[in-house]
Amino acid sequence: MVSKSELKYIQSLSDKKVRLETGCFIAEGVKLVGEMIAAGYPIRAIYALDSWDAPDTSIEVNRVEAFELEKMSLLQTPNQVVAVAKMPSKTDAINLTGKLTIVLDGIQDPGNLGTIIRIADWFGVQQIVASEDTVDVYNPKVIQATMGSFMRVSVAYKNIADWLPTLQLPVYGALLEGENIFTTKLPKQGILVIGSEAKGIRENCIDFITHPVTIPKIGGAESLNAGVATGIIVAQLTR
Amino acid sequence: MVSKSELKYIQSLSDKKVRLETGCFIAEGVKLVGEMIAAGYPIRAIYALDSWDAPDTSIEVNRVEAFELEKMSLLQTPNQVVAVAKMPSKTDAINLTGKLTIVLDGIQDPGNLGTIIRIADWFGVQQIVASEDTVDVYNPKVIQATMGSFMRVSVAYKNIADWLPTLQLPVYGALLEGENIFTTKLPKQGILVIGSEAKGIRENCIDFITHPVTIPKIGGAESLNAGVATGIIVAQLTR
Repeated sequence: MVSKSELKYIQSLSDKKVRLETGCFIAEGVKLVGEMIAAGYPIRAIYALDSWDAPDTSIEVNRVEAFELEKMSLLQTPNQVVAVAKMPSKTDAINLTGKLTIVLDGIQDPGNLGTIIRIADWFGVQQIVASEDTVDVYNPKVIQATMGSFMRVSVAYKNIADWLPTLQLPVYGALLEGENIFTTKLPKQGILVIGSEAKGIRENCIDFITHPVTIPKIGGAESLNAGVATGIIVAQLTR
Repeated sequence: MVSKSELKYIQSLSDKKVRLETGCFIAEGVKLVGEMIAAGYPIRAIYALDSWDAPDTSIEVNRVEAFELEKMSLLQTPNQVVAVAKMPSKTDAINLTGKLTIVLDGIQDPGNLGTIIRIADWFGVQQIVASEDTVDVYNPKVIQATMGSFMRVSVAYKNIADWLPTLQLPVYGALLEGENIFTTKLPKQGILVIGSEAKGIRENCIDFITHPVTIPKIGGAESLNAGVATGIIVAQLTR
């Protein structure tokens, strides 16, 4: 059983403004919530069907009916449990030394951001810096698409056009014309800028790219999906 | 203006059975339909708003109202034009010599299949052979996700567990344990088997993999998206 006001609050967390005010966001599903509990991620509340087999946790579990879960869930097929979690407190510390950092320029598709976070996590990239108009990492669709990788990869939002010129590192950028990514010398540290599928890397950032790279095209496709292109380039740069 | 029966027919093309019976499917949007016309792809009918700037074509354009287009469109935001197109006649000829062919084992997500077709097209892979339970390439969501690449990459459906053992070629398979894809010797010709994110390559196919390959993991993610993994491996095998 969940009160009307509680339900309203949970639903309101799909709104970025409310997330910023409350510092809370939602995550759903047996696998994801289970991983968050196992990792000790701060969870404020759990709402679950009776069928959900709760792991050993001190977090209180509110049992709800299927119709209630459906009202709070953003999945097409709600999957037993919804958690309200707390964002970690922000640290402005970005440490660029000795590692690869991904910079995102205007990635607005939640699925693409989630996929890129998952790629970063797979290849050991722990930091992403995103332009202020990149979709919010705590957007529920992004959280679901990360498959839990949001717990291991930090995403900071910045005015990247102001920030990029202050860096003393090689700045790689995925462009249509650039050095063949398969023969580029591997950097020990650096920045990789990824633009959106629609616009690519925008004018105000493109001048700061010191190392344009490209994925050579053999066939007829006009472009690759942003997530796929990121995966191929990050794979190369972190080999 | 579109008649009720026409509208019903167009809507029915979201059903695979109807597509098989009629040999027709739908494709939407200014860019995609424009590319199909430019490529001379067989189109049976076009339904478009007055705002659509028709390219030079002998195909008859039926002008419709926005509310009518909305009823035939499967996009969240209908984009001016819907085309009913004709599938090319099937050829059973699959030529494996001297090239890479992608084999899909149970890819059920339309977005994933579309992305994989687009990757194939980028890297010059012209043939995909899919298990019979892989989503239909003419599913409207697949067609949209290919961004036009469905015109350049053929997808044949087969009982792949029966077919794979008849081949005399190296069969690469993306598995959690296998040879590092970044150091694998590049094949001149071969098969690359990709499984679904949920199940991977299934039991009845796994024995026919002669070259298990893997994308080494550095960080914490449990898996990569099927499209991203395919992109990374195909990029390596076609370098």
